[in-house]
Amino acid sequence: MIYYRTIHFSDTDAAGVVYFAALLSICHEAYENALQVKGIDLNTFFTSSDIAIPIVHADIDFYQPLFCGDRIQIHLQTIQLNETEFEIKYQVFFENNLDKLIAKATTKHVSINSKLRQRTPLSLSIIKWLEFNQDNC
Amino acid sequence: MIYYRTIHFSDTDAAGVVYFAALLSICHEAYENALQVKGIDLNTFFTSSDIAIPIVHADIDFYQPLFCGDRIQIHLQTIQLNETEFEIKYQVFFENNLDKLIAKATTKHVSINSKLRQRTPLSLSIIKWLEFNQDNC
Amino acid sequence: MIYYRTIHFSDTDAAGVVYFAALLSICHEAYENALQVKGIDLNTFFTSSDIAIPIVHADIDFYQPLFCGDRIQIHLQTIQLNETEFEIKYQVFFENNLDKLIAKATTKHVSINSKLRQRTPLSLSIIKWLEFNQDNC
Amino acid sequence: MIYYRTIHFSDTDAAGVVYFAALLSICHEAYENALQVKGIDLNTFFTSSDIAIPIVHADIDFYQPLFCGDRIQIHLQTIQLNETEFEIKYQVFFENNLDKLIAKATTKHVSINSKLRQRTPLSLSIIKWLEFNQDNC
Repeated sequence: MIYYRTIHFSDTDAAGVVYFAALLSICHEAYENALQVKGIDLNTFFTSSDIAIPIVHADIDFYQPLFCGDRIQIHLQTIQLNETEFEIKYQVFFENNLDKLIAKATTKHVSINSKLRQRTPLSLSIIKWLEFNQDNC
Repeated sequence: MIYYRTIHFSDTDAAGVVYFAALLSICHEAYENALQVKGIDLNTFFTSSDIAIPIVHADIDFYQPLFCGDRIQIHLQTIQLNETEFEIKYQVFFENNLDKLIAKATTKHVSINSKLRQRTPLSLSIIKWLEFNQDNC
Repeated sequence: MIYYRTIHFSDTDAAGVVYFAALLSICHEAYENALQVKGIDLNTFFTSSDIAIPIVHADIDFYQPLFCGDRIQIHLQTIQLNETEFEIKYQVFFENNLDKLIAKATTKHVSINSKLRQRTPLSLSIIKWLEFNQDNC
Repeated sequence: MIYYRTIHFSDTDAAGVVYFAALLSICHEAYENALQVKGIDLNTFFTSSDIAIPIVHADIDFYQPLFCGDRIQIHLQTIQLNETEFEIKYQVFFENNLDKLIAKATTKHVSINSKLRQRTPLSLSIIKWLEFNQDNC
């Protein structure tokens, strides 16, 4: 799955470049986009009172600064780790240059029964979504 | 009620100053602080499934730029407009200079029955809170 | 000029809807998009050390909540007020329904000589851009 | 160095808790606070045209959700890695409970000559600041 995005002014900071945490938000947009493309309703997905899939870990490495107006593409790849966990890998490139990696990031997600606050198996629809996105594009 | 705040790096944009919409967020923090100081539980207040008090209007005027590290104070004043509505006025100053206004803002709030999506009278605890904050400090 | 956007998870707050100040940010994206479409380099435009065009006023009215995943369109219209000032009007609709206004907003911008911190006439390229976007679409 | 903070409404998302990337921003505030406390001017520090100290890596682990109004404390510890790099470790606790870790994070920073875009030794004032904050509190 590839997500295209233009860097907004609100993504930047007084150093003139994208604020570090903003790029993680942009990676999360790629995740949302990949869900939506496969017909998963985002509002239901993120606000369900039964099952929540919070992020339990995130990391990001920056190789190059990004500026307001830069057009990027994010390649997303999913890995199901076990019955209750998955990981998403993000690679950030300029829209027109796949040779040079701008940043790479990971988010790790755990399926939780919201009421019991305990791990619960990933739903079938998520497992299918993870399979669909497991190959890097 | 006065709210003290230091301008964070994440509040700024590539023009080197506070991003315009970020200052409205900071004003909202002053509102949250004023609620919390009077013993109102913020999480319950903002996520109640019965009554919601969404913002239906906001405006802001900027007289001077703010930079990362600037220490500001926000003076908040409330006005109950009628049975279901109130307004909050915010005046933003530097921490050590009340002569020069940096910005002023307004937010207008309406009490809504979340299920019926209809106006509902402001609760007694909010009316008391509005009275307490009606005089500018 | 019309700007299309999907509501991101990061735009929302614990009330389950778009955070009020986030919608002003999204309107600003429509402004950035309209600049970029006409060949104006955003990074140069927003970080120029000679001329700055800060926002001196913003207002927004909300008629309906927006949820994560909602697809919206923003109609942007510019008005040159005088030699140094312009205003942008934004109308926010759902992607597939122009009958019901979700929100409307305004931002007012002043051209400033960054060194002297004084008003300076709008550049020719901006005046042309304002003319191009003066008719509502 | 300890940084105290209340969770703002703007930090939360539609799942009702702090948005994952927002907690990294809050950790960055602890870094800014630790700089400011030792007399380092934040605006000069972050917008210097000679030396920049961008973040090249960040990671965060979440052990518990945070809600609007929650009062937290962040413990910050610095590690100079070599002549040009340092790392900051953050531990997030509730204000009144140091037994249970809510989250932990790391940011890695590299000193760069902004013009040459090459690594340059950390300044003496930063090395002193790193020494001051090297012991966990």
